[in-house]
Amino acid sequence: MSFELFYWPSIQGRGEFVRLALEAAGAAYVDVARQRGAHGGVRAMQRPMTASDAERPPFAPPFLRHDGLVIGQTANILLYLGPLLGLVPAGEAERLWAHQLQLTIMDVVNEVHDTHHPISSALYYEDQREEALRRAAAFRAQRAPAFLQWFERLLARNPAGKAHLLGGALSYPDLSLFQLVAGLRYAFPRAMARLERKVPHCVALHDAVAALPPVAAYLASPRRIAFNNEGIFRQYPELDGEG
Amino acid sequence: MSFELFYWPSIQGRGEFVRLALEAAGAAYVDVARQRGAHGGVRAMQRPMTASDAERPPFAPPFLRHDGLVIGQTANILLYLGPLLGLVPAGEAERLWAHQLQLTIMDVVNEVHDTHHPISSALYYEDQREEALRRAAAFRAQRAPAFLQWFERLLARNPAGKAHLLGGALSYPDLSLFQLVAGLRYAFPRAMARLERKVPHCVALHDAVAALPPVAAYLASPRRIAFNNEGIFRQYPELDGEG
Repeated sequence: MSFELFYWPSIQGRGEFVRLALEAAGAAYVDVARQRGAHGGVRAMQRPMTASDAERPPFAPPFLRHDGLVIGQTANILLYLGPLLGLVPAGEAERLWAHQLQLTIMDVVNEVHDTHHPISSALYYEDQREEALRRAAAFRAQRAPAFLQWFERLLARNPAGKAHLLGGALSYPDLSLFQLVAGLRYAFPRAMARLERKVPHCVALHDAVAALPPVAAYLASPRRIAFNNEGIFRQYPELDGEG
Repeated sequence: MSFELFYWPSIQGRGEFVRLALEAAGAAYVDVARQRGAHGGVRAMQRPMTASDAERPPFAPPFLRHDGLVIGQTANILLYLGPLLGLVPAGEAERLWAHQLQLTIMDVVNEVHDTHHPISSALYYEDQREEALRRAAAFRAQRAPAFLQWFERLLARNPAGKAHLLGGALSYPDLSLFQLVAGLRYAFPRAMARLERKVPHCVALHDAVAALPPVAAYLASPRRIAFNNEGIFRQYPELDGEG
């Protein structure tokens, strides 16, 4: 049975980390909220969360339905999908390490979100813009370099080579690091132009992942939602610092 | 071989979710940074992160060393420890659900942290107090109720009874929900006094976990670091709203 992904239909957001894994593996899946008709749309996406008889409703999207399971939390979905899609090496040590990498990427994603929403997700950006300016400055100066330089170090120290985070083959953390670099480039083009000089292995990994045939085909397809200012990575030039 | 926990020695913080699991299971462990001598202290705690030959250094504490593995990210540590300590039911569905619960608790923990540090962890609270007042108000009004009412719903819908999050026995998410309620009580006593009336099952679970003999013994021991204003849960009365 194919995978059913439940996520907002108009943004990449956290769901994109799952979409990329499914696409890179060539897996059959349904992006529920992007379907037309009674079984599609946002209402269908929300039903497993809001149904009054749901024993284990997820707190928030994304979540995945497959094989009788409903699995929430982005990193947890990838923990489940990794072995099924051949996107993680065998063995407990490798799988825990892959998951640790993914959880750290999700930490960066949370921090990126809070650069434009440092006070509340329930408020407009414009109503927390002053705070966003301060938070984004700290993110650009300290957090983005700390995280990317950590990934850079891991790539440099991978005994199987600098092309992958785990061993010598593609795994789901590679796909997620691609997405992180792509998103940071969209949101902080000036800051990233400077930072990328310090993390060449991360940049090379981004480029190599983008060139993988199934990923390249996905990125060129209408299934890839363009970055926009409703998602996690948003382009507010004033949050990108001085030129 | 016993477990080695690497975490800051003077706060509960994220490490406390791991300490509680180890203590509840009666596991032998070493809290590395709290040991004296050459193999203890903060420097020993940081070594696996900073060693220039570490192939897989964690990004941040807490991390656990056991059986040749170094495992970072709080929820990942508990994913690993759950089966070893008998703190999660058997079966993939149960383990993914337990992990999903834990990841959502860690999301709340991040949000609690940001109530007092909405701009940057590198700045003092006093230098982001105005922003903290706004963020804490949104947390008290929207986020804390949304998260706790979700856990309340899960407890009410557990077919094995309202005393546990998973099935009819103690699991690590129960321990973490105990810690979350305890921390919120410390940080937001006035807001929690109101909110607790809406989440009686969460409160009952907190009380039942605190009364478990190994947990009660731990909480009464010097191993339990008191809540303080260096940790995640901090008591700044101005962040707790009106009385």
